[in-house]
Amino acid sequence: MSTPAKTDQSPASRQGPLGVAAIGYAFMGKAHSNAWRNVASFFDVPAFEQKVLVGRDPEQVAEAAARYGWAEYATDWRAVIARDDIHIVDICAPGWMHAEIAIAALEAGKHVLVEKPLANTVAEAELMTAAAVKARARGIQSMIGFNYRRVPALALARELIAEGRLGTIRHVRAAYMQDWLSDAESPMTWRLRKETAGSGALGDIASHAIDQIQYLTGESVTEVTGTLRTFVSERPGPAGLEEVTVDDAAWATLGLTGGIGASVEASRMAMGQKNRLQIEVYGSKGTLLFDLENLNELNFMDASAPVREQGFRRILVNEPEHPYMDVWWPQGHIIGWEHTFTHQIRDFLTAIQDGTAPVPSFEDGLEIQRVLAAIETSANNRSTLTALSSSSAASAPSLKAGV
Amino acid sequence: MSTPAKTDQSPASRQGPLGVAAIGYAFMGKAHSNAWRNVASFFDVPAFEQKVLVGRDPEQVAEAAARYGWAEYATDWRAVIARDDIHIVDICAPGWMHAEIAIAALEAGKHVLVEKPLANTVAEAELMTAAAVKARARGIQSMIGFNYRRVPALALARELIAEGRLGTIRHVRAAYMQDWLSDAESPMTWRLRKETAGSGALGDIASHAIDQIQYLTGESVTEVTGTLRTFVSERPGPAGLEEVTVDDAAWATLGLTGGIGASVEASRMAMGQKNRLQIEVYGSKGTLLFDLENLNELNFMDASAPVREQGFRRILVNEPEHPYMDVWWPQGHIIGWEHTFTHQIRDFLTAIQDGTAPVPSFEDGLEIQRVLAAIETSANNRSTLTALSSSSAASAPSLKAGV
Amino acid sequence: MSTPAKTDQSPASRQGPLGVAAIGYAFMGKAHSNAWRNVASFFDVPAFEQKVLVGRDPEQVAEAAARYGWAEYATDWRAVIARDDIHIVDICAPGWMHAEIAIAALEAGKHVLVEKPLANTVAEAELMTAAAVKARARGIQSMIGFNYRRVPALALARELIAEGRLGTIRHVRAAYMQDWLSDAESPMTWRLRKETAGSGALGDIASHAIDQIQYLTGESVTEVTGTLRTFVSERPGPAGLEEVTVDDAAWATLGLTGGIGASVEASRMAMGQKNRLQIEVYGSKGTLLFDLENLNELNFMDASAPVREQGFRRILVNEPEHPYMDVWWPQGHIIGWEHTFTHQIRDFLTAIQDGTAPVPSFEDGLEIQRVLAAIETSANNRSTLTALSSSSAASAPSLKAGV
Amino acid sequence: MSTPAKTDQSPASRQGPLGVAAIGYAFMGKAHSNAWRNVASFFDVPAFEQKVLVGRDPEQVAEAAARYGWAEYATDWRAVIARDDIHIVDICAPGWMHAEIAIAALEAGKHVLVEKPLANTVAEAELMTAAAVKARARGIQSMIGFNYRRVPALALARELIAEGRLGTIRHVRAAYMQDWLSDAESPMTWRLRKETAGSGALGDIASHAIDQIQYLTGESVTEVTGTLRTFVSERPGPAGLEEVTVDDAAWATLGLTGGIGASVEASRMAMGQKNRLQIEVYGSKGTLLFDLENLNELNFMDASAPVREQGFRRILVNEPEHPYMDVWWPQGHIIGWEHTFTHQIRDFLTAIQDGTAPVPSFEDGLEIQRVLAAIETSANNRSTLTALSSSSAASAPSLKAGV
Repeated sequence: MSTPAKTDQSPASRQGPLGVAAIGYAFMGKAHSNAWRNVASFFDVPAFEQKVLVGRDPEQVAEAAARYGWAEYATDWRAVIARDDIHIVDICAPGWMHAEIAIAALEAGKHVLVEKPLANTVAEAELMTAAAVKARARGIQSMIGFNYRRVPALALARELIAEGRLGTIRHVRAAYMQDWLSDAESPMTWRLRKETAGSGALGDIASHAIDQIQYLTGESVTEVTGTLRTFVSERPGPAGLEEVTVDDAAWATLGLTGGIGASVEASRMAMGQKNRLQIEVYGSKGTLLFDLENLNELNFMDASAPVREQGFRRILVNEPEHPYMDVWWPQGHIIGWEHTFTHQIRDFLTAIQDGTAPVPSFEDGLEIQRVLAAIETSANNRSTLTALSSSSAASAPSLKAGV
Repeated sequence: MSTPAKTDQSPASRQGPLGVAAIGYAFMGKAHSNAWRNVASFFDVPAFEQKVLVGRDPEQVAEAAARYGWAEYATDWRAVIARDDIHIVDICAPGWMHAEIAIAALEAGKHVLVEKPLANTVAEAELMTAAAVKARARGIQSMIGFNYRRVPALALARELIAEGRLGTIRHVRAAYMQDWLSDAESPMTWRLRKETAGSGALGDIASHAIDQIQYLTGESVTEVTGTLRTFVSERPGPAGLEEVTVDDAAWATLGLTGGIGASVEASRMAMGQKNRLQIEVYGSKGTLLFDLENLNELNFMDASAPVREQGFRRILVNEPEHPYMDVWWPQGHIIGWEHTFTHQIRDFLTAIQDGTAPVPSFEDGLEIQRVLAAIETSANNRSTLTALSSSSAASAPSLKAGV
Repeated sequence: MSTPAKTDQSPASRQGPLGVAAIGYAFMGKAHSNAWRNVASFFDVPAFEQKVLVGRDPEQVAEAAARYGWAEYATDWRAVIARDDIHIVDICAPGWMHAEIAIAALEAGKHVLVEKPLANTVAEAELMTAAAVKARARGIQSMIGFNYRRVPALALARELIAEGRLGTIRHVRAAYMQDWLSDAESPMTWRLRKETAGSGALGDIASHAIDQIQYLTGESVTEVTGTLRTFVSERPGPAGLEEVTVDDAAWATLGLTGGIGASVEASRMAMGQKNRLQIEVYGSKGTLLFDLENLNELNFMDASAPVREQGFRRILVNEPEHPYMDVWWPQGHIIGWEHTFTHQIRDFLTAIQDGTAPVPSFEDGLEIQRVLAAIETSANNRSTLTALSSSSAASAPSLKAGV
Repeated sequence: MSTPAKTDQSPASRQGPLGVAAIGYAFMGKAHSNAWRNVASFFDVPAFEQKVLVGRDPEQVAEAAARYGWAEYATDWRAVIARDDIHIVDICAPGWMHAEIAIAALEAGKHVLVEKPLANTVAEAELMTAAAVKARARGIQSMIGFNYRRVPALALARELIAEGRLGTIRHVRAAYMQDWLSDAESPMTWRLRKETAGSGALGDIASHAIDQIQYLTGESVTEVTGTLRTFVSERPGPAGLEEVTVDDAAWATLGLTGGIGASVEASRMAMGQKNRLQIEVYGSKGTLLFDLENLNELNFMDASAPVREQGFRRILVNEPEHPYMDVWWPQGHIIGWEHTFTHQIRDFLTAIQDGTAPVPSFEDGLEIQRVLAAIETSANNRSTLTALSSSSAASAPSLKAGV
């Protein structure tokens, strides 16, 4: 698969700036483009050029390319991948296209950044991971865009936990609550069909929560129980009501290595909650609390302080001492959500330059995919719920316990 | 069982103030005594007298009786129940004593208030409920002390939900987090043995969360999945390390009538969280958020407001318009946790006077008991966790999905 | 004035419990009665008896006495003061009655607790203070009820500052915001007339803020500038519109010994703010923040922590290690506003027992009174505002600077 | 002053994109550059080009120009202003250079954006304003950079107030608290000398607070009282200790047209407060609260709601319905502090295109300058503080009231 021509453009032999192509110009394409356009104004990164933005609609992609700072636009991603002046492919297309594009790009010797979730199925994710492993052996890097690892407050949380400041982690609580599907009259979309979206709140947002649980604790999920619910089972489509085939909300309890327990909850029908990823990590020596709607803050309870002075400390993560924050604005001048992507690009470029494997890797993405699949499996086998034991069965309600 | 002698002291024929006996003078006994001592200073309630406080240690109970406003003390609860001048028995003794005392008191024609949980086992709870049903037919009232139903903010939440302000309830999130067992060196107590405590965080605090889920939504739990964890499996006792036989933390997902989903989480090892019962109720038209550490507040998101003005509204539940609050202090002068019990006594006395059945009833307590038991059943059958489906089984970690 | 008969009832020679009389049964009378009724159930205090409640309306005071736990009621405070079985007089009557009652009680050898503000005028406050000084020499104690000194969180703040944890205090910000006068149609009352109320928001609530500034810093106000505003100048009375002759809101900047600056702001027309006394103390080594609507919390920023971990720490002041809190409920079970009075009675009784002078003293109350008067003087002399200096006077607006 | 040559480059006759020059590349230069680099990626604005960045140090400005997206760099601002291809001059240089550059640019027919405060003295500000008025008559626009008017939450606040949702505004409370000068050992800088900085916290940050008070209420300051304090009077310079000649903290009470009262407080020694501009606007029908450290949020209390449901509503100002927010990210994905500048550039460019005068104007900046000067005048004349009236002068402390 690796041809001599490809070898010439390998990182080692390349001269000049890295050429970047991005595929997709919707929400994620806009966010990634913004990061590419701004990263070099703040961080010292290897030279690169925003070469080409790829999309299906020529007019729209042309307009987006001009607006977001790309030199050219294109509609054929295969042709773009074949170009010698493209060294990086940033995949912001929908999940069902990830596998094909990513594998092709890796085989063509391009470094690949792909949006989460890695794919819509475990099988696709496994193929992608295999391609990434092979490419890595040739010096071609790959990364999955769990961008919240680059929230400075969460990066600080990771540091504190890794330093042992929380002692033994006992349990983690993570919830991702949004409300944009609350209206039962809002129309059917591809995001509500299993064949296109893979799953609903589970893959879309619970995946972030699960990645954080593993990232922050440094441990791996080994067992799950899951529950999925669809509150609005039909939505209006162009030709009448259509069945919603993904979950509106998802729940799971996880067991991790290290004896850690965790709970995950995700909903896109949590009225009033706009983008609330809340994470709570409880350890024997302290606790950390985070909320994405206040992403510049981390709350830290340090149990080594005298009881009289203990409490949750709101750290405004805007000091030069904090991860990623030495290049931004003076203390207290908060940064926005978009710069999680700026930090991600910075780390991706730095890894390419250093020849090290960036994280999270496709392997990490595959692991999340397997957890998501296990949650679905658990949820679908809920038929085994059993009636509760009762010494006076007649008066017992039809309560069932999932076993 | 109902003898002529008993009939003479029935509510209808009684003259003069109600005589009250309380059993137990520890944490709950102190809280209940405080409520009895203060309720008539604020609320218009039927006349009553704090007659006798009952406990096992004569010196300690004597001191407690004097301090908390009881006219007498006693050590034999059976003798007290037999007294003609006692009309109400308030049971604050540990859970394993509830059934015997409550059944005896009800059969003796006394109105009974019993602390939660109703009992340590479903079987005991069923016997108690049967006794309560029989007594009620004779005009003898009974009530279980899920005191948080009398937090004004939660009573207001119930009102708003019952009025339809949240539309169709979709899901509920409830967590009760404490940290007093965080220290792995803290000693063994009866609360950590299954035979005396029944369960750990599950019965102690998750029970409150489950009661609130049913109370606020007006719906009943019909299915559960549960997970229990014990993080510190041995603790120092007088004769060396002893095994902890109850849970340190509990998780459950619940299905309720009306298609509602709910999650419950409880921990006594959530470092830094002191008494944090957080409840979130999500509906199609709005959302309510509550936190017991700020018990005078309720956050209400009303989706019928224009989008431009929507947001969570922090209602300081201290206005005369709010449940129970017309008798207290001027607006903004917050009340303490203890007055959930004052309100409970007020409602109990009022129900006795009116001859109506107070809520929550023993039936309600039994229902909670069954849910707790079902969660344990589900948790204990976790052996059926299955390996996740994977197309490359070799590389799959030992991830298991509870089904 | 001190007769031999009086000597017989001096603290030294008294046998048996202290007899207490309270004067006034409205808002403050209810709050003080509640404290007397409960203090001995929680704290170890010298024996006392709630002897008599005094008020002008015999029916109402009789009802209040029965409800609030007083053995008797009376309508003639002079007769009550003359009783040999009364050792303590607790004055909850309106401000214009303080001087006469307090001086008479002190001269009759009674320990006196008087509600804040000490009086309506500096002249009255001086007479009261002189009487208190004389009485103290005879072992008769007196105290003014700045009850917020007994909020556990503020008592903890005082401890931390006194220990030097904030370093050199630089400035303090205190605001007391309420909204019960926001409605321009709400009727005229005695609280809105200068001759009965002395002042408006200034004496009513700014006085609390000023007392806290001196209490927390341990320094004294030496200079002030003040501004007063009345937003609703007329209100409906029984015979038509009447002029409001007190301030609706007050502002002051204070200079204190030790080079400290402070700002004070008070309003009874701050819509939405119910009882929000906010205090911020800024020092060279740290900062403390407090808010009365969350009176169980203190926020502490300790600048000696590494920058990476600095932040405001929300201390839930509910641990046995915290002032007054060892007798209440387990951690996290918050107490209400009313117990600032319970703690006040506890400290008052303890001081009487120990023969030490309780604080805050009448001298402290007088000092506050003088600050209030100076703020009024400053505000009333605002006629000296001068036009701003401008090099092109023609275009200058009519801006004036108070000098 | 307006020559025929200048007429040729007037907005009406210009063809092609607007050429932009920015002067200054420090904190503000970086922030403005960021806005120029990004504004067209989000908003539809007239075409422009980032032509040239001007600074004194050729190496540093060259590096900054490349990093921040400018085509060229230059060291002589006069030469840049003379260029025909420059149509807009954005002045980010220190305050003492504002007048000379701005007047020259306006006379050269360039649209001018100048950072706040307008100048270091009222006299300079008056000259600048006169130049702006003359230029405006020729179609040359000018604007002062009080960027917080472009915080979406504050723009929403302005809308709600203008619509009458708060009823009659009664008082406003504004404080701007930072802590970067807390360390008494931090060195002397030009910001601490009156001749270079004009003033300290007063001009630097209180100016923002005062601008907001006028902007939000739509009223003008007519009278002030002021107090200034310098807590650390000497700081280490290269040649030993130097005197600090500006204020560390400033206080003022303001009277505005419309009978509104306001308080202003600013400090750069408020330990723990990083960038906390807090604004509270109290009206007869509602209240608004804002805090710059959570700049995506606005708290709104609407008194027209039933009392039972009233409370402060946290509006997450991230909906398409909110000012400036239709172009950013989906709801709940917060934006950072930097985009106040992006919005400012957008409005500036739009006004240039439309031929309308952008706000805030130099007149607005001059008005702020006069208020700042009046506060200083008031503070400096504090020598007239008088002793408080006291009937027992001997015991009176040396309390003085500013009159």
